[in-house]
Amino acid sequence: MARIVQKYGGTSVGTPDRIRAVARRLIARKRAGDDVVAVVSAMGHVTDELVELASAICSDPPDREMDMLLSTGEQVSIALLAMAIHAEGHDAISFTGPQVGIVTDPVHGKAKIQEVRGDRILEALAEGKIVIVAGFQGATEDGQITTLGRGGSDTTAVAVAAGTHADVCEIYTDVDGVFTADPRIVPAARKLDSIGYEAMLEMAASGAGVLQLRSVEFARNHGVVIHCRSSFNDSPGTIVKEADSTMEQAIISGVTHDTSEAKVTIRDVPDRPGVAALVFTCMADANVNVDMIIQNVSEDGTTDISFTSPKTDLVRAKRAAEEVVAELEARTYSVDESIAKISLVGAGMKTHPGVAAQMFRTLADAGVNIDLISTSSIRISCVIEGDKVGTAVRALHTSFGLDSDAVIAEVSPGCGEEV
Amino acid sequence: MARIVQKYGGTSVGTPDRIRAVARRLIARKRAGDDVVAVVSAMGHVTDELVELASAICSDPPDREMDMLLSTGEQVSIALLAMAIHAEGHDAISFTGPQVGIVTDPVHGKAKIQEVRGDRILEALAEGKIVIVAGFQGATEDGQITTLGRGGSDTTAVAVAAGTHADVCEIYTDVDGVFTADPRIVPAARKLDSIGYEAMLEMAASGAGVLQLRSVEFARNHGVVIHCRSSFNDSPGTIVKEADSTMEQAIISGVTHDTSEAKVTIRDVPDRPGVAALVFTCMADANVNVDMIIQNVSEDGTTDISFTSPKTDLVRAKRAAEEVVAELEARTYSVDESIAKISLVGAGMKTHPGVAAQMFRTLADAGVNIDLISTSSIRISCVIEGDKVGTAVRALHTSFGLDSDAVIAEVSPGCGEEV
Repeated sequence: MARIVQKYGGTSVGTPDRIRAVARRLIARKRAGDDVVAVVSAMGHVTDELVELASAICSDPPDREMDMLLSTGEQVSIALLAMAIHAEGHDAISFTGPQVGIVTDPVHGKAKIQEVRGDRILEALAEGKIVIVAGFQGATEDGQITTLGRGGSDTTAVAVAAGTHADVCEIYTDVDGVFTADPRIVPAARKLDSIGYEAMLEMAASGAGVLQLRSVEFARNHGVVIHCRSSFNDSPGTIVKEADSTMEQAIISGVTHDTSEAKVTIRDVPDRPGVAALVFTCMADANVNVDMIIQNVSEDGTTDISFTSPKTDLVRAKRAAEEVVAELEARTYSVDESIAKISLVGAGMKTHPGVAAQMFRTLADAGVNIDLISTSSIRISCVIEGDKVGTAVRALHTSFGLDSDAVIAEVSPGCGEEV
Repeated sequence: MARIVQKYGGTSVGTPDRIRAVARRLIARKRAGDDVVAVVSAMGHVTDELVELASAICSDPPDREMDMLLSTGEQVSIALLAMAIHAEGHDAISFTGPQVGIVTDPVHGKAKIQEVRGDRILEALAEGKIVIVAGFQGATEDGQITTLGRGGSDTTAVAVAAGTHADVCEIYTDVDGVFTADPRIVPAARKLDSIGYEAMLEMAASGAGVLQLRSVEFARNHGVVIHCRSSFNDSPGTIVKEADSTMEQAIISGVTHDTSEAKVTIRDVPDRPGVAALVFTCMADANVNVDMIIQNVSEDGTTDISFTSPKTDLVRAKRAAEEVVAELEARTYSVDESIAKISLVGAGMKTHPGVAAQMFRTLADAGVNIDLISTSSIRISCVIEGDKVGTAVRALHTSFGLDSDAVIAEVSPGCGEEV
């Protein structure tokens, strides 16, 4: 007997029929002798509808009241899923995040889970019930309802698995697992059977959409084994856990890409101490997330400072860049929205020199120009022109021996969205 | 400065525009110097939509999960109303029933409020906020979400007024207050300026739809003054409070009617001790609410037992009646669904003999036959043929001097539904 936490996204519970299908899946697992906890998101477009309702009333709704509003979405899902299990003749009980002791900090709209009190779930499991928990939500110590923001339900699932010492946290998506590259771009991409937390974190941070970065971080910090798998079949997916000797230590786990960032360059900045500090203090004050940074060598006492930033932060980034230009008496600033970041990720990279050289050579051979470079101990990222992203990712995938023998046949049509 | 609780029903918060209108009303009251708490229902048809969703999934959903589902309706309303107040530049905070310490018994679907802990509301009021509380819901001592059933939001409002020692609980409806009779049937009906708890209870119990019986009972038990008024204008409505010497002690407060009951008669029952006990134990076991009971005098050692019961209980009542007939070897049973109950209510009735006689004479003069009679110290009810209800109510209204001088002009078009 194992204790299993399963997470289902908004598409999986989007209609009464799909809710019934999830119910049957849970019951089958329960019948097989396991203790089962389900963490679910709001039905399909419910969250969008609630956001629309709010914006019809208030252009700038208080975060606390948005959380009060949005948290109803998951509450509807858990009640309906419990009913669907009941309709099949099995016993189930639903809990909201606050009810089940998911304690968060008080940052409404993007709260962080501080603690999951597993007692109530364990009691209900001991009574033979299938337990349904609302994803994406929690409460502060003094009972304010909070939501966790993007990827919140995955994080809830991992946190519930940690709080109940579950054997595994199964996260259901519309793809078969974690792939060596996005199958939409690389038909020869292969599913990974397993991957270590560190490599998975780098994959998630550099563009692999299948698992949310936050949930992987939480899993690593609490030693929760994640099984990322498809809700459309029963095939094994990808196991994410502490890398150990039994795990294949691939030099390269995958090639990821990310086209969601733009590049901002401050031109002809006086090259004196404190300039970079001033630029990025300004950006931080404007709440602009900065990813990669490069400062060119000085010419004639001036230099260019470039950085990449999510396109969603671009309006704030431009405003801050104007201030910086005026403050530093720089010449001007420019913005390039047609960039792509491609990354090679692999835990084996640490002990294999020459990976970077091979990457740069492969890109050069493919006619891809490199604009910015950044590295971690198990990742190398390059910013390139946006329209070369497919060429670059495919060339790297082949060059590092990641291509599958069974091209196309294994390719999943999905795009790694939660379901 | 007064402390005011205002209750708005589902129609009043049915659209973003209406929510904004309620927000402005609350702000105006706050600006006038009062502390304001609003209790709101779910938007318009939200509850019906949730019920429909549930029945698409489960024919017999567990009551606990229905409460989990339905309580989201009010939670959406409170968040949106708080946002609407925020959009007007004022400070507001919303609370669910469980958050604000509305403690109920554990009877899901029709829980009774046991306690309202006013601290959290009072703290928020002290911070200058308009406080919004979800109607219809609460939580048990161990945190299970419950709903209060029919009329729940009115009861929440009265309970919040009691828990915060408010000066008045204003309940907004689509009519101007409590009338001497239903204006749709009696054009000459007058609005009452005030009425005592006991008379209001009898009015509500015998068919006046404007206030829910439960909320009036709660108000009487906790000494909460109710102001029942229209949400369409600022005219004073009807004050419901402890009858005292300053209150006009009308002999008759009003004439009510109720066509929601049916009459069941068990025919030729052996006339021996314990028979009535058996009949009504059977009905109670079948969860049939029984209102009026009459047992005719015995003829030839057998008698007829009649009672009235809500039509909604009729399927169960018939099944129980069949059992009773078999058990007692009675001849048969019959059902009459075309009856009406008319009632005269008035606290002054206690000290004015002759009211019953005048009532029966008036009905006889109007050609209305009386089928059953029941009385309390301040109410006389008669069951009559259903198609005579208008004739009977108008005749009594005139006979007891209740007709308004300004006929028709004062008549409200509404029907006493919550808005």
